[in-house]
Amino acid sequence: MFTKIAASLGILLVLQTSSVQRVLTDPKFQAAEDFVAQDHDRFVREIIQITEIDAPPFKEARRAKAFMEMLRQSGLTNVEIDAEGNVIGTRKGSGTGPTIAIAAHLDTVFPEGTNVKVRREGTKLYAPGVGDDSRALAVLLEMIRAMDAAKIQTAGDILFIGNVGEEGPGDLRGMKYLFQKGPYKDKIKMFISLDPFGWGNDITVGGVGSKRFKVTFRGPGGHSFGSFGLVSPAYALGNAISKLSKIQVPQRPRTTYNVGVIGGGTSVNSIPFESWMEVDIRSETKEELNKVVETFTRMMHEAVDEENRARSTSQGRIEVDVKLIGDRPFGEVSQSSPIVQTASAVVRAFGLGPVYGMSSTDANIPMSMGIPAITLESGGTGSRNHTLDEWIDVEKTASVRGIQIALGTLLSLAGVI
Amino acid sequence: MFTKIAASLGILLVLQTSSVQRVLTDPKFQAAEDFVAQDHDRFVREIIQITEIDAPPFKEARRAKAFMEMLRQSGLTNVEIDAEGNVIGTRKGSGTGPTIAIAAHLDTVFPEGTNVKVRREGTKLYAPGVGDDSRALAVLLEMIRAMDAAKIQTAGDILFIGNVGEEGPGDLRGMKYLFQKGPYKDKIKMFISLDPFGWGNDITVGGVGSKRFKVTFRGPGGHSFGSFGLVSPAYALGNAISKLSKIQVPQRPRTTYNVGVIGGGTSVNSIPFESWMEVDIRSETKEELNKVVETFTRMMHEAVDEENRARSTSQGRIEVDVKLIGDRPFGEVSQSSPIVQTASAVVRAFGLGPVYGMSSTDANIPMSMGIPAITLESGGTGSRNHTLDEWIDVEKTASVRGIQIALGTLLSLAGVI
Repeated sequence: MFTKIAASLGILLVLQTSSVQRVLTDPKFQAAEDFVAQDHDRFVREIIQITEIDAPPFKEARRAKAFMEMLRQSGLTNVEIDAEGNVIGTRKGSGTGPTIAIAAHLDTVFPEGTNVKVRREGTKLYAPGVGDDSRALAVLLEMIRAMDAAKIQTAGDILFIGNVGEEGPGDLRGMKYLFQKGPYKDKIKMFISLDPFGWGNDITVGGVGSKRFKVTFRGPGGHSFGSFGLVSPAYALGNAISKLSKIQVPQRPRTTYNVGVIGGGTSVNSIPFESWMEVDIRSETKEELNKVVETFTRMMHEAVDEENRARSTSQGRIEVDVKLIGDRPFGEVSQSSPIVQTASAVVRAFGLGPVYGMSSTDANIPMSMGIPAITLESGGTGSRNHTLDEWIDVEKTASVRGIQIALGTLLSLAGVI
Repeated sequence: MFTKIAASLGILLVLQTSSVQRVLTDPKFQAAEDFVAQDHDRFVREIIQITEIDAPPFKEARRAKAFMEMLRQSGLTNVEIDAEGNVIGTRKGSGTGPTIAIAAHLDTVFPEGTNVKVRREGTKLYAPGVGDDSRALAVLLEMIRAMDAAKIQTAGDILFIGNVGEEGPGDLRGMKYLFQKGPYKDKIKMFISLDPFGWGNDITVGGVGSKRFKVTFRGPGGHSFGSFGLVSPAYALGNAISKLSKIQVPQRPRTTYNVGVIGGGTSVNSIPFESWMEVDIRSETKEELNKVVETFTRMMHEAVDEENRARSTSQGRIEVDVKLIGDRPFGEVSQSSPIVQTASAVVRAFGLGPVYGMSSTDANIPMSMGIPAITLESGGTGSRNHTLDEWIDVEKTASVRGIQIALGTLLSLAGVI
């Protein structure tokens, strides 16, 4: 999710505008644009093909393998799955420009067993994960085909990446490995994440920070009838959720919290010995994030104390473990930086107004390390991502334009020979 | 769990006392008693053997198969697993007495994957399910061996049963099938359940009624950051649990409630579209049970209304489904009935005082149908059943005495030729 921020004024760099104009008016780029429009049906088929291979967090392997085959068939070199599970292939440049990576994430938020069959109604495709981020994976393939069809050679190498670990418990593990450990560490000079669907004029220039927790309440347990009156971790959890739901957060800087997954207990007729929840807290500023984390942590302990006072602790007390399971760094890239100015100029060239904003995406990692990075939309429209009702519209005008904007940005940054 | 009730006065029937005395003073019974004492080490080994085959609700098949083999090796006839999963074997009588069934339940409250390895410290055995109800299954085997060793023939047939579905979601399915559908329907004239461990002087003469519910809150779901501010089933559930935990119930008639298992949600960074809990409500009287069920049901709907008022319903409202998943009938057997008086006389003959009480066991079903039925303890001592810390003490005096009391009661009811 993207939240708008104010644009800094008067920092449009002429340099970027002219290099963008050079690329966009190049007959080769126009040939690539035409190819994207003609090839649209195939692109849609590939979205469906990718979506229908499920890819829960930490279980992206099947989709990764399929995507690796697709990248290989598209003619990239060095197509491999790295040690973390990211699929990476290279489209070699002439060696005279910076290496740029462009990525879409393989994983979805949905657990194993979710029905990922795509239902099509007119130009709308319905399926969990179809827009977040299957469409973007298909955009990568389309870009490669368009560049090949138009015989475009770039100055810098381009890495096309289908990465793991963007969603849920993945905690950006794909990006952390790519930028901090793997063979491409220190080699990537600019980064674009495509995530999720959307017209193509939203440019993420700041990475929202988040902290994620698994909160586990533990107690002595017991027989539901025989031990009635003993403290219960389920009641501590219920009370904790109820408290959490009342936290007031500011709209600006946008700050949010969520109880995602809950669990615990062994049977209906046993007092649980463990009840737990996973909590996501995000903010556009470190200060607000820390404030909410502090309030949340205090509430968890209050809930424990209240339960230990409300019922008998004769067989043991309730205790709580608040464990940090995810920590996405804050990050930003200056609006005046070449990567943002380039993307903005491309968006304008397509008749749209660039909108700057913040979100929490794979780009958080390079941003936090000072590597120029942005997140762009993958084109088209859609809604309800992270729900079973997720859908995208592949109506051709907005769908094709989004791909063209992303391709124009990528080529303007890589430099066309 | 067993709660004491007052004994009716002056109803000791001379008839039962004399028939009990006749059995207990029979040299054959004394030979059986001696056998039980001598064979105790083997009995303990069998408790361990049974405990270490896990038997979650609806997954009793492995333990059932092993128990069937054990019953077959003990020489019973017609040893079979019925269509519901109960293991049943017959020890034929002379045909001049009523058919009696004695049962212990195969299932435990623990889910698949629970470590059921028994840890022994002195005379204590620690393991989930060791006393509830593995010990009682081993008692059945021990009784058969003792009767054979002492060459005891009974007037009535005795059915030895290891049954399914006593715990958790099983909802007494084993007993419901046995008494209402299966081949022994209408044939069993008296019933004894052994459940769980304990000295042997607690006699269950009333079946506590219970109702069990699965409560599912559903909502539109969404992205944790992008859709922040939408209603969440997790908050409705937390609030519902918090309300439920404050219900005041009477101590007499004993009335209880419990939140057992909870679940729902797809990922930490998604607002769940579904959050649920399983709730157990019990009482010694129908009136109190219905009162708590009514309060509970009202609270579930209040929690929904409050959540729909607290946050945005622009993408959909929270709704709740309160589904009855278990309904154990009330039942009782008169303290003046021959079955209760016989058990009482046996308990007294062993120097203990019978204590009458209510609990929720397999005997609820025959009791609710007017078939004379009691639940007895299987001997020994123990604690913490329904927790991972469950243990029993197989110290010989109390362990052997419990088996002897159960055997004495069974034989006094069946009649020794």
